[in-house]
Amino acid sequence: MGIEIERRFLVDQELADQWRTYPSQAVLQGYIARDGLGSQVRVRIVDNKARLTVKGTRTGCSRPEYEFEIPLREAEAMLDELHVGDLIEKRRYRVPYEGYIWEVDEFYGDNTGLIIAEIEIPSADTPFDKPAWIGREITELDRYGNAALSIRPINRWSQEDQLSAVEPAATDGLR
Amino acid sequence: MGIEIERRFLVDQELADQWRTYPSQAVLQGYIARDGLGSQVRVRIVDNKARLTVKGTRTGCSRPEYEFEIPLREAEAMLDELHVGDLIEKRRYRVPYEGYIWEVDEFYGDNTGLIIAEIEIPSADTPFDKPAWIGREITELDRYGNAALSIRPINRWSQEDQLSAVEPAATDGLR
Repeated sequence: MGIEIERRFLVDQELADQWRTYPSQAVLQGYIARDGLGSQVRVRIVDNKARLTVKGTRTGCSRPEYEFEIPLREAEAMLDELHVGDLIEKRRYRVPYEGYIWEVDEFYGDNTGLIIAEIEIPSADTPFDKPAWIGREITELDRYGNAALSIRPINRWSQEDQLSAVEPAATDGLR
Repeated sequence: MGIEIERRFLVDQELADQWRTYPSQAVLQGYIARDGLGSQVRVRIVDNKARLTVKGTRTGCSRPEYEFEIPLREAEAMLDELHVGDLIEKRRYRVPYEGYIWEVDEFYGDNTGLIIAEIEIPSADTPFDKPAWIGREITELDRYGNAALSIRPINRWSQEDQLSAVEPAATDGLR
């Protein structure tokens, strides 16, 4: 319940030895609803445990989020019957760094090549240190959201939509 | 989990003494997502208990449905923050008749005047007897669905959209 405040970044694949050695879990997820106002309903399965998550509209890096445990069989049936877009398969690494846990998602399937790190912080202006492998920020780039990736995966993106983790355009000022 | 098979009818208000005396509960519900493919996510509160229900696309009178109990506080917060359209307030009467329970919903607010009875049956062709106060069938009329009513309540309908419970048009063949 409440508000999730999260910042998201591309990850430097060249430095994968600094994060890929941490514990990880396979994640399967899909979206069963996306309304025109931005609410999303996600079903996610990790380690045979399932959750249904409702996310409201993002404002900057914060977003209302409600999460509920649900039975695995019903999660599987909903992902099978009701998903909008494709299912997302990824591996999530949990990497501790300077008092925070970074969640690093390595995507598979049509999103292979994409690696996104997320950090959840108590308030939008909380300072935090970034590991060396953290690249360009994508918090407010909606096309990098998981729901968007399930409908338009990166293998269908134009060249200019695919940002480099480590070479931000001179104009974007995010690094 | 699974498929809900349900038929829905308008109710004859003149015969209200035959159903309004049965036990009833106040129902508050809202929709937090409706995607373009027809999935709906509903939050409903009855007697301080809350449920989240995901409904897939209706085919005739059957529809995939998944229902989960959720904490009341989160249900209230979602209805407050995330609902699409207006909240629906109604009173639900449970009326036994010839081996089935009819659920009779009397709507309030912008849907005042509307009374809908539903019967859940094991398969689409299961026969059942109708009480005298059951009127015209509306199972496949999408505008009478609760999600549709939350967005376009009957006080905004045209005269010809508002069907009479007891005088079906000669052409509709539903009675």
